[in-house]
Amino acid sequence: MGGDFAPHEIVKGAVDAARAFGVTIVLTGDESAINVELAADREGAAFSYEIVPTSQTISYHDHPAEVLRTRKDSSLYRAIQLVADGSCEAIVSAGNTGAQMAISLFVLGRIHGVVRPGLVSAIPSTTGEPFYFIDSGAVADWVPENILQFARMGQVYCSLLTGKGQPSIGLLNIGEEPEKGSRAITETYKLLAEKSQGFIGNVEPKDAFRHAADVVVSDGFTGNIFIKTIEATAESLFGMMKDALKSSVKGRLGGALARGNLHAVKDKLDYSQYGGVPLLGLRGISIVCHGRSNANAIYHAVRVAKSMSERDLVKRIEAIWR
Amino acid sequence: MGGDFAPHEIVKGAVDAARAFGVTIVLTGDESAINVELAADREGAAFSYEIVPTSQTISYHDHPAEVLRTRKDSSLYRAIQLVADGSCEAIVSAGNTGAQMAISLFVLGRIHGVVRPGLVSAIPSTTGEPFYFIDSGAVADWVPENILQFARMGQVYCSLLTGKGQPSIGLLNIGEEPEKGSRAITETYKLLAEKSQGFIGNVEPKDAFRHAADVVVSDGFTGNIFIKTIEATAESLFGMMKDALKSSVKGRLGGALARGNLHAVKDKLDYSQYGGVPLLGLRGISIVCHGRSNANAIYHAVRVAKSMSERDLVKRIEAIWR
Repeated sequence: MGGDFAPHEIVKGAVDAARAFGVTIVLTGDESAINVELAADREGAAFSYEIVPTSQTISYHDHPAEVLRTRKDSSLYRAIQLVADGSCEAIVSAGNTGAQMAISLFVLGRIHGVVRPGLVSAIPSTTGEPFYFIDSGAVADWVPENILQFARMGQVYCSLLTGKGQPSIGLLNIGEEPEKGSRAITETYKLLAEKSQGFIGNVEPKDAFRHAADVVVSDGFTGNIFIKTIEATAESLFGMMKDALKSSVKGRLGGALARGNLHAVKDKLDYSQYGGVPLLGLRGISIVCHGRSNANAIYHAVRVAKSMSERDLVKRIEAIWR
Repeated sequence: MGGDFAPHEIVKGAVDAARAFGVTIVLTGDESAINVELAADREGAAFSYEIVPTSQTISYHDHPAEVLRTRKDSSLYRAIQLVADGSCEAIVSAGNTGAQMAISLFVLGRIHGVVRPGLVSAIPSTTGEPFYFIDSGAVADWVPENILQFARMGQVYCSLLTGKGQPSIGLLNIGEEPEKGSRAITETYKLLAEKSQGFIGNVEPKDAFRHAADVVVSDGFTGNIFIKTIEATAESLFGMMKDALKSSVKGRLGGALARGNLHAVKDKLDYSQYGGVPLLGLRGISIVCHGRSNANAIYHAVRVAKSMSERDLVKRIEAIWR
């Protein structure tokens, strides 16, 4: 029930994924609304699903602490409980991210040794290979130890996805030299230099986009601004470009001819191809999707969930602190 | 002598500005190198200039504190002294920004009441009207009071440029609600809500680009990441687009037809049209230019310097604390 296009796009993406990957999808939420959506998907191959009806809703404006206390029968809370009690292997949601993080933390719990879970993202680089960025927004109040842990968990995630033995780590910073940045960031640099295998130093945003490191780490405040600035800049640029092309006959003609090429760039940047990203450090798989997720994003998020379950993400992260 | 294209583009831009605006330019640096550049500019209208020879250089890797102690005969240090002793009305540089900030602070001094000077930027928005962003990187270790002062100084700067009586202020944050962000940011929100006339609340990056506020404030660490992420995202996008257009015959043809339109967007985003940005809070005008400044950027930076001098930027900021 979460996300700007729920339940239509969510159910559609889940059904597509169930068909393509042979997984059973459990849909939590308003039973009759879900059934309306499912009716539209009855045509075509069979797929395996269950519905778990819930009665409460969570909006984007609800405060996570409030949700935690008062929304135990929401689609999000129930779905996370299904993972905690072993009925499901992963939860996928496009709803209120803060609420998903809070409920996941409370219901699934942290892996022993993890101080704060972090949110990882995959970001397209100019080399064609994405880099992994953590923390995208889970921990706004932080200490250097959090970032060291993000580096370790990010390496595990990157190596599960890419097969790399020891992914390289860069620290998002405002300059390359070790003394650059705030005091907390220079302390983080020292901690990473001392304790993080594969640490290559500071990376500025331009270096990150050139794939200077496999995994780029940051605190959750700066990281969320970073992620949102990339998205907002790309969106403004495409908007300006569209207007500019429409402004003259040559532009309209050129734009029509080059449409396929320009769309290829847009697709490359489309978050929906990555689907969703896991919260790293939890005793269960919780995949966070963009609020604007369409069916394609949900489909890919289920793919990510399945692959993380098969590759034992949780056990692999537990092994860091064993 | 500072900047990636010094002294050629710097001298050229300064000469163009001297001719266009009727100002006297004082060029500090390697006298013979400057004379070589000036020889190329002798053709055309007369212009007024002086050379102040200096013997030392500052590189991008030099640490500001070190520069402050050991580079008193560098082009940057001497130029700032010329402002401090009243020989010049403003200093413009594309050199080491950290060094320019440190020397400006030490030699020009702070305006009474200002805790830390801030670096303002003009950023294009989708409405066509830029918004003003402060702090772009002067104060990485901060307290909420710094941001309140940035808001006040940013308002003065914006109102000098636009004529607006009370420019609106937004706080760059990871969500709209007052409780969003780190503890330091929520404290800043409260301080702004209480003491900043024209404060409209938090703005996320996407809101900033839609010109949700005339002036957007931030700490210098987050702010520098913000500015550099915009620049890096735009650069990667244009690079990807160029490659995509080259990849097919239709793309090449379409790209050729639409070139003018696409370049119009690039021009809109071109920092060089804004030239340079002042450090706000100093007892003198110190304009910071991008390291990659070309002659056009320097030309516009001199325009900004002249206009800030004529509009009494320093006195206007002094008046805030009087």
